[in-house]
Amino acid sequence: MQTLTVDLGSRSYPIHIGAGLLHQPGLILPHLAQRRVAIVTNTTVAPLYLQTLTDSLALNDVEVVPIVLPDGEQYKTWETLNTIFDALLTHRCERKTTLIALGGGVIGDLTGFAAASYLRGVPFIQIPTTLLAQVDSSVGGKTGINHPLGKNMVGAFYQPQLVLADTDTLKTLPPRELSAGLAEVIKYGLIYDAAFFDWLEANIEKLRALDHDAIAHAIRRSCEVKAEVVAKDERESGLRALLNLGHTFGHAIESGMGYGNWQHGEAVAAGTVLAADVSRRMGLMSEAEVERVRILYRQAGLPDTAPDLGVEAYMQHMGLDKKVEGGRIRFVLLRGIGAAFVTAEVPQADLEAALTHYVQPT
Amino acid sequence: MQTLTVDLGSRSYPIHIGAGLLHQPGLILPHLAQRRVAIVTNTTVAPLYLQTLTDSLALNDVEVVPIVLPDGEQYKTWETLNTIFDALLTHRCERKTTLIALGGGVIGDLTGFAAASYLRGVPFIQIPTTLLAQVDSSVGGKTGINHPLGKNMVGAFYQPQLVLADTDTLKTLPPRELSAGLAEVIKYGLIYDAAFFDWLEANIEKLRALDHDAIAHAIRRSCEVKAEVVAKDERESGLRALLNLGHTFGHAIESGMGYGNWQHGEAVAAGTVLAADVSRRMGLMSEAEVERVRILYRQAGLPDTAPDLGVEAYMQHMGLDKKVEGGRIRFVLLRGIGAAFVTAEVPQADLEAALTHYVQPT
Repeated sequence: MQTLTVDLGSRSYPIHIGAGLLHQPGLILPHLAQRRVAIVTNTTVAPLYLQTLTDSLALNDVEVVPIVLPDGEQYKTWETLNTIFDALLTHRCERKTTLIALGGGVIGDLTGFAAASYLRGVPFIQIPTTLLAQVDSSVGGKTGINHPLGKNMVGAFYQPQLVLADTDTLKTLPPRELSAGLAEVIKYGLIYDAAFFDWLEANIEKLRALDHDAIAHAIRRSCEVKAEVVAKDERESGLRALLNLGHTFGHAIESGMGYGNWQHGEAVAAGTVLAADVSRRMGLMSEAEVERVRILYRQAGLPDTAPDLGVEAYMQHMGLDKKVEGGRIRFVLLRGIGAAFVTAEVPQADLEAALTHYVQPT
Repeated sequence: MQTLTVDLGSRSYPIHIGAGLLHQPGLILPHLAQRRVAIVTNTTVAPLYLQTLTDSLALNDVEVVPIVLPDGEQYKTWETLNTIFDALLTHRCERKTTLIALGGGVIGDLTGFAAASYLRGVPFIQIPTTLLAQVDSSVGGKTGINHPLGKNMVGAFYQPQLVLADTDTLKTLPPRELSAGLAEVIKYGLIYDAAFFDWLEANIEKLRALDHDAIAHAIRRSCEVKAEVVAKDERESGLRALLNLGHTFGHAIESGMGYGNWQHGEAVAAGTVLAADVSRRMGLMSEAEVERVRILYRQAGLPDTAPDLGVEAYMQHMGLDKKVEGGRIRFVLLRGIGAAFVTAEVPQADLEAALTHYVQPT
């Protein structure tokens, strides 16, 4: 097992990475304020891991309130959140009852926001069971729900007490979801660490085959990069914005295609290709580098072109993005591999060219 | 105008108290991150003050998005909160758009939670227009909504940039609501400041007549006491719990009678009489002191007995209260006037005696 610490002063927390962590309740017990937890999970993950976790906690005299939600991004709504509140209130959960998120990013986001809001804040623990959640939503304290008018529009910044990334849980992950997680892993190399990007190019087949050492290294390095960025800039005023590479386009893709049809990671991959192409058109990145990005995405089982929504639709969807300031859209672009930056100075022509070039019919 | 500062480090904020503050946009402008605000108010307050505030901001090139909600505690729900999110998204409000709460406690709680959650946090300003909101909900950062299973069960701790307490707005307040505000004012004397309680006994008629100097002093001293308590203990682990004097019983009264039928302040007054009576039965307070409390409430136009819900119903409603720890109910009691404390060691017999003694048929 490897451990790294997200350094946020009094709200610092450890991330444990390794195999078989669900069978080690000793990792969880020291973080509980009372011998009672509510485990929030979904109908896909519950049959796989809920009983294992419940049994190992029950053996240590921890009472478990199970809350099983429907599975899918389309349930990342107030209605689902409210079923968590209903269950917590019905079971008289208190300020010291810890919420445990057992599942992917949707479960983490819902549970985190529930924990932030229930009784104005109760402790929570993240046990992400997808690669995407292990490298992305379990680090940084972003929680929230979608709104019919936009993704993640309502939520809170709220830190967990602990994150357990059990690599064994990836064995039950569909290949498409593993690829979606790799999209975020690749992102960390692209924005911040060219050497890690090189390593990913050399190890992409091992990662897809779930080679334990390779996958543990990829998770650890991804979490390190994100933790470093988040620790430096907890509330997203500057550096943290780089983590949104590909996300402005990506959110437009998810929104334009209807939430749930494209995986988040797939949308981010296609969005990053668009960002790389805009960077190239602005003279910031070589065509060869754009091709390296596209090749690695293909090898990771990800799209390297975006759906052709039309320039108008992209603009419309991006106009509602959170990263808008004074009416202008801010983009994360690349000065080559390993060096992202934020700018609002993007020529409309380059934007439109990218949105008509690296797209294919939906 | 008087000003005091709530000292919370980087989240400190000023409270201005005085007449005619709504006509002084210069107090607001320095706190805006962009020349755009959303004013959240209700159908009762809007006809009185929305135009005044909008005009004074518009004269200073501040664009105003007005959001007018229905009036009443029964609207302190997710559905109403969602109408705020709908409006903010429809008008493309951004991370730097400030939300202004113009109204009583319900508007403040809803707007504060909307500000805490919209895009995971935007700035907000409180302009409380009731005495209760001026002395209570505008200080301390508590925001939230009710749930069918309990009051204020979902929310956030979130601080405003600024509070403007314009005493002129009290002139349009129904007498019953003024009394409800006085209940909280009296509470600050009871829990923390015996000299202030003496002053209130001497000035209660002036306060009910809205004598400007008396009311400004009462607001200021109340905010000072609350700000002092909150600054020492922002997240309610210890000292802050004293502010809940009368609230455990009070919430049970509001819940048992149906939200909206008893004013919050009325329920707190009756709840405090119960807490004082329990304190007396435990030998902590004299009968004469309990009588002083009851007399001041009567003079303030408040109830000095609670509704007879029956002991069972009280217990039921109190069991769901947030201030429950390890299954036991914690009460705020009095060691005489000006000295509140928290305890879970309340003899059941004293509780039941108070709940059958200081009550009358509903």
